[in-house]
Amino acid sequence: MTDPTPDPSMMSAAAIAAAFREGRLGARTVVAATLERIGRVDPAVNAFTDVLAERALARAHTLDAARARGEPLGPLAGVPFAAKNLVDIAGLPTRAGAKINRERAPAERDGAVVRRMEAAGAILVGALNMGEYAYDFTGENIHDGPTRNPHDLGHMAGGSSGGSGAAVGAGLVPIALGSDTNGSIRVPAAFCGCFGLKPTYGRLTRAGSFPFVGSLDHLGPLARSVADLALAYDAMQGLDPDDPVAAEGPPEPVLPRLEDGIEGYRIAVAGGYFARGGDPEAFEAVERVARGLGCTRRVEIAEAARARAAAYLITAAEGAALHLDRLRTRAADFDPAVRDRLIAGAMIPAPWIDRAQRFRRWYRTAFLDLFGEVDAILAPTAPCRAPKGGQTHFVLDGVTLPVRANVGVFTQPISFIGLPVVAVPVRVDAGLPLGVQVIAAPWREEVALRIARRLERDGIVDATPAVL
Amino acid sequence: MTDPTPDPSMMSAAAIAAAFREGRLGARTVVAATLERIGRVDPAVNAFTDVLAERALARAHTLDAARARGEPLGPLAGVPFAAKNLVDIAGLPTRAGAKINRERAPAERDGAVVRRMEAAGAILVGALNMGEYAYDFTGENIHDGPTRNPHDLGHMAGGSSGGSGAAVGAGLVPIALGSDTNGSIRVPAAFCGCFGLKPTYGRLTRAGSFPFVGSLDHLGPLARSVADLALAYDAMQGLDPDDPVAAEGPPEPVLPRLEDGIEGYRIAVAGGYFARGGDPEAFEAVERVARGLGCTRRVEIAEAARARAAAYLITAAEGAALHLDRLRTRAADFDPAVRDRLIAGAMIPAPWIDRAQRFRRWYRTAFLDLFGEVDAILAPTAPCRAPKGGQTHFVLDGVTLPVRANVGVFTQPISFIGLPVVAVPVRVDAGLPLGVQVIAAPWREEVALRIARRLERDGIVDATPAVL
Repeated sequence: MTDPTPDPSMMSAAAIAAAFREGRLGARTVVAATLERIGRVDPAVNAFTDVLAERALARAHTLDAARARGEPLGPLAGVPFAAKNLVDIAGLPTRAGAKINRERAPAERDGAVVRRMEAAGAILVGALNMGEYAYDFTGENIHDGPTRNPHDLGHMAGGSSGGSGAAVGAGLVPIALGSDTNGSIRVPAAFCGCFGLKPTYGRLTRAGSFPFVGSLDHLGPLARSVADLALAYDAMQGLDPDDPVAAEGPPEPVLPRLEDGIEGYRIAVAGGYFARGGDPEAFEAVERVARGLGCTRRVEIAEAARARAAAYLITAAEGAALHLDRLRTRAADFDPAVRDRLIAGAMIPAPWIDRAQRFRRWYRTAFLDLFGEVDAILAPTAPCRAPKGGQTHFVLDGVTLPVRANVGVFTQPISFIGLPVVAVPVRVDAGLPLGVQVIAAPWREEVALRIARRLERDGIVDATPAVL
Repeated sequence: MTDPTPDPSMMSAAAIAAAFREGRLGARTVVAATLERIGRVDPAVNAFTDVLAERALARAHTLDAARARGEPLGPLAGVPFAAKNLVDIAGLPTRAGAKINRERAPAERDGAVVRRMEAAGAILVGALNMGEYAYDFTGENIHDGPTRNPHDLGHMAGGSSGGSGAAVGAGLVPIALGSDTNGSIRVPAAFCGCFGLKPTYGRLTRAGSFPFVGSLDHLGPLARSVADLALAYDAMQGLDPDDPVAAEGPPEPVLPRLEDGIEGYRIAVAGGYFARGGDPEAFEAVERVARGLGCTRRVEIAEAARARAAAYLITAAEGAALHLDRLRTRAADFDPAVRDRLIAGAMIPAPWIDRAQRFRRWYRTAFLDLFGEVDAILAPTAPCRAPKGGQTHFVLDGVTLPVRANVGVFTQPISFIGLPVVAVPVRVDAGLPLGVQVIAAPWREEVALRIARRLERDGIVDATPAVL
């Protein structure tokens, strides 16, 4: 019997797909409820920039018909999802959070990750708000308005995938796609209290998405359960000839192994740089996760501060190179906070970048050596809970710093060398959520996902959506 | 019977090796005559910065003894050679033309190319003068004095491998090793009237040499015959685990195929950019070679001027990155002409380099497409004959330009994407020699060498050493 009033905010993607497969829930019912909830809740949250009601209902109709005919259904059949607005969506200009990009021709086809999600049966319901050109950790877009934290609308959602974090944290969709260059999936996952997966660099195709920093950009999913994260990740895996850096070789599905034991894993808490420079509760969250895993080991990641600085320089310079013509001709149309950093990036001397790249090679080798001793490393995601909306400065370890540039102090040294990370949501009290990074060796997403699943099973982490 | 007075200036490496192998010439006799000629001629030419009399005589003794015992002899057994002073030589600080580098610890072992030459039986007799840190097309070193053109001592030898070109052109050694980042083998080969081979990027190991621009540096030989060039090249080929960019796979010796027909090759003269901006005799030299090959085809290399500009920017920025600490602490110890360009390079904005690198990928693809239509391309080596010693400016196509920065206008767009080139020496009248580049597709050194050999056989090119 079809449930007349399913509440998608309470259902996981896996549950929706199972109910749809088993005939307990129609795709049109799910989509209609999703659209209704978006219409009711999103004006306050501002996670969506585009709601694709017509497209989603048409696709739901097709899926319902396919199911009625007994056709094979994908693992995400009937599951609504949304994508950060830097992923191409056929018929829309790919805005990437920018005013200037709205003048682009509408995309002719969906980006590869959207096509793969839909090939698995998922239903795209909209495009999500983001920081301009992804150069952001706040989720506050000057053109589209700020995305608000669903757990406290007076606070930031985090960025740049702010709409992705908020849409999942607000229970608008079970899965959202985001991008992460320096922390842009992980930070909003932490602030909005959901899971986020930043895969190994090159693992998921970026074809049909608007770039920021070619050597640092990753796409990945956010979700409220580890199984949903794995479902989305598995659906998007695999070689793509349209993305020259996309991974070679066949996909390695993680869902079937998600419940396997993690007893063999050597897990360590990152010390030094990752154990200072943040609010006490950020480290409390890490300790909570470590205790939950029975982890007492510590590991030092050498030169993490330098890695963060090098990531910062490379981001500014490569980002400026990408936007140079727009900076010259359309400076006034940028978000001032983004423009100023890009202009600064345009003036970084080339030898600094050369040195940053040389250091990067050294750091990668040194970091990878650690995976001879450990299988996973725990570190805070952000140094604090979500700042207030519009807050420009915060105090980290006694130093006043600009928010926008410094939320990524713990995420940047990890993405800098493309390591896979699952950001898990942690609550240490009744306040806003916090995040912990579970970091694995390259191509070992499975390790981080299995650890995240164990934490979820044992109730150490908490991705309960906001009541809105 | 041993010839009592061999004149090594008139003998090719192949002839010396044959005479040594057949017992007609002792290695010590060759080395003694070489040292005598260097002692007599080099004070005027200034090709050598170090003459290794003791080492060379000891090695000659060893080779004579080995031959006397009937031991197997390498293809270069008994052949003297010298190396640009950026290649490590055990016991000497690797100066790379710089005053500052003289403070370095003496090298503990020879550079890989020297070891390979000696493994083939050759005898290192000295280190050769060069432009400071290889950032030079003149061969005029402020610390070691200018290398003079052996064909007219009032003129430049070209650079930065000026000592290499002059040592071969003056008949001091049959083979010299040089390096080419933007033309530094090809230009002195043209000015000094000898052959020079700049192999495919990555083809010959650079282990144990002082770098300049990692993504553009090549090592290669200069010689007075194509067979000698091939002998040296074959001796130096092959994978080297000490050089991360050195070619994979087994060596492909070219000497056995040097006399094979070239009738199947489609050869074209480069038009457009490569047919203007130089003195008429530079193009006359190309036409002479084209006529000799019966070549009437023309080919356009798109965006060559931009390629030269991009190579220039990347060189300045990467060179500056390499020398940044020395520029900060030892600026006064640089050659001013090199220092000023490096300091300028240190201030190039990173996005320019990012764009230059993007263009480079485009240009490489576009250029490689040409090799679907042709097998080899002819272009001038330098835009002029050797300028006078100390000359700072010249007029190219009606425009007055600094010599030091502009001799490479025709070489830079080729090395920019690592194509193999044999620079052949051409005389169009009784004046100084000129050079023509025979350019092949990547890894097709054989094509350029066989064409050069045909030109040599037919008397189209002329590498007669200077009478000194």
